[in-house]
Amino acid sequence: MTEPRGRRDSLISIARQQQNLASLDSSIVDRLPSYSAALFEAKTQKRLTFEAIAEHLGRSEVAVAALFYGQAQASPEEVVQLTQLLGLSHESPVASQMMGFPDRGRAGPMPPVEPLIYRLYEIVQNYGYAYKAVLNEKFGDGIMSAICFNSKVEKEVDENGAPWVVITLKGKWLPFTRF
Amino acid sequence: MTEPRGRRDSLISIARQQQNLASLDSSIVDRLPSYSAALFEAKTQKRLTFEAIAEHLGRSEVAVAALFYGQAQASPEEVVQLTQLLGLSHESPVASQMMGFPDRGRAGPMPPVEPLIYRLYEIVQNYGYAYKAVLNEKFGDGIMSAICFNSKVEKEVDENGAPWVVITLKGKWLPFTRF
Amino acid sequence: MTEPRGRRDSLISIARQQQNLASLDSSIVDRLPSYSAALFEAKTQKRLTFEAIAEHLGRSEVAVAALFYGQAQASPEEVVQLTQLLGLSHESPVASQMMGFPDRGRAGPMPPVEPLIYRLYEIVQNYGYAYKAVLNEKFGDGIMSAICFNSKVEKEVDENGAPWVVITLKGKWLPFTRF
Amino acid sequence: MTEPRGRRDSLISIARQQQNLASLDSSIVDRLPSYSAALFEAKTQKRLTFEAIAEHLGRSEVAVAALFYGQAQASPEEVVQLTQLLGLSHESPVASQMMGFPDRGRAGPMPPVEPLIYRLYEIVQNYGYAYKAVLNEKFGDGIMSAICFNSKVEKEVDENGAPWVVITLKGKWLPFTRF
Amino acid sequence: MTEPRGRRDSLISIARQQQNLASLDSSIVDRLPSYSAALFEAKTQKRLTFEAIAEHLGRSEVAVAALFYGQAQASPEEVVQLTQLLGLSHESPVASQMMGFPDRGRAGPMPPVEPLIYRLYEIVQNYGYAYKAVLNEKFGDGIMSAICFNSKVEKEVDENGAPWVVITLKGKWLPFTRF
Amino acid sequence: MTEPRGRRDSLISIARQQQNLASLDSSIVDRLPSYSAALFEAKTQKRLTFEAIAEHLGRSEVAVAALFYGQAQASPEEVVQLTQLLGLSHESPVASQMMGFPDRGRAGPMPPVEPLIYRLYEIVQNYGYAYKAVLNEKFGDGIMSAICFNSKVEKEVDENGAPWVVITLKGKWLPFTRF
Amino acid sequence: MTEPRGRRDSLISIARQQQNLASLDSSIVDRLPSYSAALFEAKTQKRLTFEAIAEHLGRSEVAVAALFYGQAQASPEEVVQLTQLLGLSHESPVASQMMGFPDRGRAGPMPPVEPLIYRLYEIVQNYGYAYKAVLNEKFGDGIMSAICFNSKVEKEVDENGAPWVVITLKGKWLPFTRF
Amino acid sequence: MTEPRGRRDSLISIARQQQNLASLDSSIVDRLPSYSAALFEAKTQKRLTFEAIAEHLGRSEVAVAALFYGQAQASPEEVVQLTQLLGLSHESPVASQMMGFPDRGRAGPMPPVEPLIYRLYEIVQNYGYAYKAVLNEKFGDGIMSAICFNSKVEKEVDENGAPWVVITLKGKWLPFTRF
Amino acid sequence: MTEPRGRRDSLISIARQQQNLASLDSSIVDRLPSYSAALFEAKTQKRLTFEAIAEHLGRSEVAVAALFYGQAQASPEEVVQLTQLLGLSHESPVASQMMGFPDRGRAGPMPPVEPLIYRLYEIVQNYGYAYKAVLNEKFGDGIMSAICFNSKVEKEVDENGAPWVVITLKGKWLPFTRF
Amino acid sequence: MTEPRGRRDSLISIARQQQNLASLDSSIVDRLPSYSAALFEAKTQKRLTFEAIAEHLGRSEVAVAALFYGQAQASPEEVVQLTQLLGLSHESPVASQMMGFPDRGRAGPMPPVEPLIYRLYEIVQNYGYAYKAVLNEKFGDGIMSAICFNSKVEKEVDENGAPWVVITLKGKWLPFTRF
Repeated sequence: MTEPRGRRDSLISIARQQQNLASLDSSIVDRLPSYSAALFEAKTQKRLTFEAIAEHLGRSEVAVAALFYGQAQASPEEVVQLTQLLGLSHESPVASQMMGFPDRGRAGPMPPVEPLIYRLYEIVQNYGYAYKAVLNEKFGDGIMSAICFNSKVEKEVDENGAPWVVITLKGKWLPFTRF
Repeated sequence: MTEPRGRRDSLISIARQQQNLASLDSSIVDRLPSYSAALFEAKTQKRLTFEAIAEHLGRSEVAVAALFYGQAQASPEEVVQLTQLLGLSHESPVASQMMGFPDRGRAGPMPPVEPLIYRLYEIVQNYGYAYKAVLNEKFGDGIMSAICFNSKVEKEVDENGAPWVVITLKGKWLPFTRF
Repeated sequence: MTEPRGRRDSLISIARQQQNLASLDSSIVDRLPSYSAALFEAKTQKRLTFEAIAEHLGRSEVAVAALFYGQAQASPEEVVQLTQLLGLSHESPVASQMMGFPDRGRAGPMPPVEPLIYRLYEIVQNYGYAYKAVLNEKFGDGIMSAICFNSKVEKEVDENGAPWVVITLKGKWLPFTRF
Repeated sequence: MTEPRGRRDSLISIARQQQNLASLDSSIVDRLPSYSAALFEAKTQKRLTFEAIAEHLGRSEVAVAALFYGQAQASPEEVVQLTQLLGLSHESPVASQMMGFPDRGRAGPMPPVEPLIYRLYEIVQNYGYAYKAVLNEKFGDGIMSAICFNSKVEKEVDENGAPWVVITLKGKWLPFTRF
Repeated sequence: MTEPRGRRDSLISIARQQQNLASLDSSIVDRLPSYSAALFEAKTQKRLTFEAIAEHLGRSEVAVAALFYGQAQASPEEVVQLTQLLGLSHESPVASQMMGFPDRGRAGPMPPVEPLIYRLYEIVQNYGYAYKAVLNEKFGDGIMSAICFNSKVEKEVDENGAPWVVITLKGKWLPFTRF
Repeated sequence: MTEPRGRRDSLISIARQQQNLASLDSSIVDRLPSYSAALFEAKTQKRLTFEAIAEHLGRSEVAVAALFYGQAQASPEEVVQLTQLLGLSHESPVASQMMGFPDRGRAGPMPPVEPLIYRLYEIVQNYGYAYKAVLNEKFGDGIMSAICFNSKVEKEVDENGAPWVVITLKGKWLPFTRF
Repeated sequence: MTEPRGRRDSLISIARQQQNLASLDSSIVDRLPSYSAALFEAKTQKRLTFEAIAEHLGRSEVAVAALFYGQAQASPEEVVQLTQLLGLSHESPVASQMMGFPDRGRAGPMPPVEPLIYRLYEIVQNYGYAYKAVLNEKFGDGIMSAICFNSKVEKEVDENGAPWVVITLKGKWLPFTRF
Repeated sequence: MTEPRGRRDSLISIARQQQNLASLDSSIVDRLPSYSAALFEAKTQKRLTFEAIAEHLGRSEVAVAALFYGQAQASPEEVVQLTQLLGLSHESPVASQMMGFPDRGRAGPMPPVEPLIYRLYEIVQNYGYAYKAVLNEKFGDGIMSAICFNSKVEKEVDENGAPWVVITLKGKWLPFTRF
Repeated sequence: MTEPRGRRDSLISIARQQQNLASLDSSIVDRLPSYSAALFEAKTQKRLTFEAIAEHLGRSEVAVAALFYGQAQASPEEVVQLTQLLGLSHESPVASQMMGFPDRGRAGPMPPVEPLIYRLYEIVQNYGYAYKAVLNEKFGDGIMSAICFNSKVEKEVDENGAPWVVITLKGKWLPFTRF
Repeated sequence: MTEPRGRRDSLISIARQQQNLASLDSSIVDRLPSYSAALFEAKTQKRLTFEAIAEHLGRSEVAVAALFYGQAQASPEEVVQLTQLLGLSHESPVASQMMGFPDRGRAGPMPPVEPLIYRLYEIVQNYGYAYKAVLNEKFGDGIMSAICFNSKVEKEVDENGAPWVVITLKGKWLPFTRF
């Protein structure tokens, strides 16, 4: 069952390359539009990170990942750019499926069971009323839009060298209309 | 049923002062620790915003609001500062109740029904997997901590004068331990 | 157990007057802000319809009813006008409680069990995707705001004399921001 | 990976044509009758909007979209008209499947997770009791029918050029029978 | 701990009289309008069956029981008749509370946990689609109204002397409007 | 795209014939035993109503429809009669599958989302306690059996020519055993 | 803080006497009819086990406990016997409340969270289909009645001296009626 | 459509033979291990009841049925005996799949919708606390094990010839450990 | 609003003493037996940690905390010891209430919303099947008892001085009985 | 149907070997990543326990089982080692699928229905608040990490020869950040 060390090392190094890329768990495929699987597969094939794709499209990483999960819409220009980048044929059904209006919100169960996503949910659970109170005092009676909205993710490293995630949520303030 | 204009105006102006202050809906009181109602009442009495209280305590507005909703713990120093600021007696049960370890997460129902809080939940619902994919590619296999965590709320005004909310979520990255 | 006809008739006529007025079921009181019960009681006392109050305040009937259920905010001017109209003291806690930011969405259970409200829910259930498809084709990728929103209720009578309800929902179109 | 500009532009322009058309997310297909997928596919192929189809059939856009989602029944005449318009064979199973009585209400999850549909749900959640109170005062004890019902969607543009959605819900008033 | 037989027999006979009357379980009181408890108490006091009350009011037993549970509205005449029959003062809050529009559907949990009510639910669960299929074939595409509706309960005894319940549900047929 | 009128009319008349027959929505197939689809298909093929089949088998329409949905058991004689009537081979798996003991209750979701079935559910929700109270007074402490049970559906036309549905539920009364 | 040994021992022996008696957790009281609390209190006061009460009434222990939890009805004779045994006044509301028809099924949450009750639920979860299959083969298509039903609990000790619980469920077999 | 009487009778008699055997509803197959379908099919083929199989294996009928539903484990000896009895090849995947540790509890939904299984659930719902109270008084603080457990089903016929089901649940008593 | 420094410091030091003690959030009180509140109050009054109480009773800290939350039973000796330690009267209802059999499992909602408790739940969610697989291979087909069970909590400090929690769950292995 | 004893014994002994190995229930496959099925199959083929695999990889048994269920990530080295050990080709999709970031938490339903996993859940349900109280007193306001976490399973045998399971949960303590 042993193998020559060289062979082994090269296998490991191939594996390592793949490991830095987000892919799609097969058990989630049915909850997503059919083009999701195709996009992720091509992304893995091309060894592209979301950062690279986002730069290519001139959009935010979060938006591009959302697009892969069927939670955002690509413009016609982006569909062309993306299929080219990923090496997908323009006649492939992927391109035309991406033209549809996204049917959002079904990617994962709520409450989330994935630990990373659950932490975001927990922030809403614990601090939801605190955000509401602070926003009401600052802006009046209304909401922060999740539609007229953008978001970004950044990495910071503290003085001890420990990495921190910084997620920025930016949404237009919409006051309740008086009627 | 009419009243002299002066009297009316002064009533309106009193009302207006109160309106900028977050208070506690009576129907939520049972879900919160008993000191919440007392803190909010005193805050209304003293006409204090969370911004003012936060500045006084040297903490973030979000944390202070969370503290009022029983979702964060005050240090002994802060309890003393806060009761003084709000004009509550040091012997009042409020002070000693605030000493307890918070029993978090029960302030509101999930999924949230309050429109403002729902929008935050919807962001998690729509972009949860996108955040996960981007964070995994940037940091590896792990989560953003919601414990070793801080948050702030800012107001921005765009070129058309429209206000935008900027919520920053900052949490330490915790990689899954290999065992 | 019988009573003189006159006495009976007058009792019936008193009853009839009350019957045209929406009041508050005691079993729902705990789900609403504490001022709701006071407002409804005063409204019954004064024999005021929502139509009459709405006209007095210069607002829509739907908004005024929402305000009574704690789902909308009154301006300081309206609080003064309303307490005067309903004969409530300006010092009563009702006035000051109405100053709070509404904590919306908890008035009734979802799915609704009340037949009238269930019918509205059923419309969303049956026609939700149809509205989405039509709106997407007419406006693009986005949503109809429920915040920057107004609504009215009208009565129409058809050629057979049968009454029809016409509910108008009008919301600003918000396109998803590209980011 | 680059392509001549002309080729690219023509790809984009093809994409743009498709983008104005509502299509069917593959992940929803299993919740709908089998003819839904066929109808949507043919609609995309023929580049038809619901507006165009509705005009052809002499019905409302909302009803036609509902029909595509299996939430409304087509008359025999409409089935013939529709299959002709969409270029489907009269012997195709689609035609005969559309003859069945609709099995309504399963198109999407409730509470809705799609942001556009959620906004409609939220209107019911927030204003449900307000509608009930106003309707009871205007019509008595009863409901607005969701069966003896029609609905339309219109676009309005305000003085600032911003688009607004106007959804009209019109249902017969049904008083509770006294028995 | 023993008692003279005569005393005991008379206690038993008093108990027996009460036992034929439906009363209100204290644990359900909070789910019903506040007049429910008062009506049931008076009914017990007066030893009245729903049959007797229904006959007095000229309405169906089911409707009268529904009225006691806050699921149906009494006309002003009936309120007067009922309060007289039950010996309640016309000035009692009961009379005026009964004037409100019923807030239906919250009397018990769904799925029902009460065995008798569960059996009715189970009939809908098991035979729901069968009823739909038969009704569609007999009447077309539509529903049986639960609003323009009446119901009665009868007792039949079979040839072996065993009692059978016969519940009749009668509702107007409402065809879906074509729009 | 136009066709000769004669061709069109004949298409419409074929469509019309099918429209009076209940069929099976493809999205419900997985919730039913596998013979359901085969029975419904054959029924459509043979243009048989449940009324016709029920008459042939000497059973109630409701029971026969329930049998098609896998909610009732056919006797061996009925299986033979039914497969003959529907033109199914006796060796087809359908016949032998129908021999199994029904696994009831999974045909549709509860609460029902289909409007027709929901109305029946709503009757239980609104009148459940009323039925219980009336039945308890008439029969004592017990339940109406949903097993030792039969049901029928009838059509009545009122003096204005409007159709009414009459559903009769008849179940044996089962008193709680004293133990 | 120390006490003389004799005093301590007598305290412990009093405590020990109480410990063999089932009592009512205060957090469950609201889910039960109001007489439950009174019955349990009197039972504790009189130091009576369910076994002793059951013997006195000539009923099964399980039925008597069910009666205390409002899940079974007492006959008039039993009400008299029970109130005498427990030392309750015949005029106490307890006696008359026990005359009502039980409103069953709300004593605890489902799925049960109490470990002992959960084990019974788990038996249904794991063996439910096994029971169905065996019963269908033994009796045909039908159910075991939970109404025409009795149950008992026995203690057995195995050869190693370990105690075993034996619960017997005995219900009449009800075949589905053919209609 | 008629057939010769003899042919018909023989068809009926074949059908009758099958009817006494529990089989597997196709809509439940996905919730069970893959060997379940194979076992049931072979059982039907061989016309074996659970009673016959149980006798062959020297186990209880309930356990054997549970084994078919993937809720119990067979010993290696039993796997061999069972595959032989059912005429399955020893190399068939069935044999090796049965070697796995059962993944219990997913056979049916909870609350159960099947009427027979629901009745068992209802017994737990109604009598759960009664069992707990009686068991606590008889055994102390603990539970009846559902693991160290066995169960049997018997048929009794009462003096009127009516059949009764007797289900015995026998589990070891486990006292809570003091720690 | 300022105070002399000395006064302030002494207030802070009083506060600090309380902060190391677990107390009871008022919003959870209704879910617990009534003695819980009394025990926690006395514990706070006496400034006792669970560690101190556990040592006094000779039991594990976890068990003692469970006892305070109504999730474990105290022996008669412990009740006497505990009431003495906490300075509660032996005649207080607390002592006699603690004699009841615990009604476990209702202290908090499931899924837990409290972050600390959620993490334990998440471990079960993520590693549940892993534990099952490993335990099955090590012990066969069975379960780890949660009744015949004990648990302890320890603190470890790693080489960087960071504290770690070590929770040990120890339960008897119960093999499924063969029957 | 009988077979020679020798043949039978050898069949049994083959079966016995398989029985000590955890395998994958086919009904759970869809909830897991696609490589799970392949890994389990190979493990069964190679007759490897998790203990053996864990030793080979130098990791804990629990982590390895979690890895098989898609709940943990393997390093590139481990992927190579594992595929070699299991005899899977390095080019098989399994290897590359294992490179993905785990999508945790969906292996089984919550609340768990599997008895073994349910017991762990029950421990959280019953002792959750006890753990919180003890941890808060020992460590302050914070949580035990489930990410910076490891776990092991051990077997102990008590003085009577009965086996006990010891599960150790070890997580880093994370204090809530003050902000």
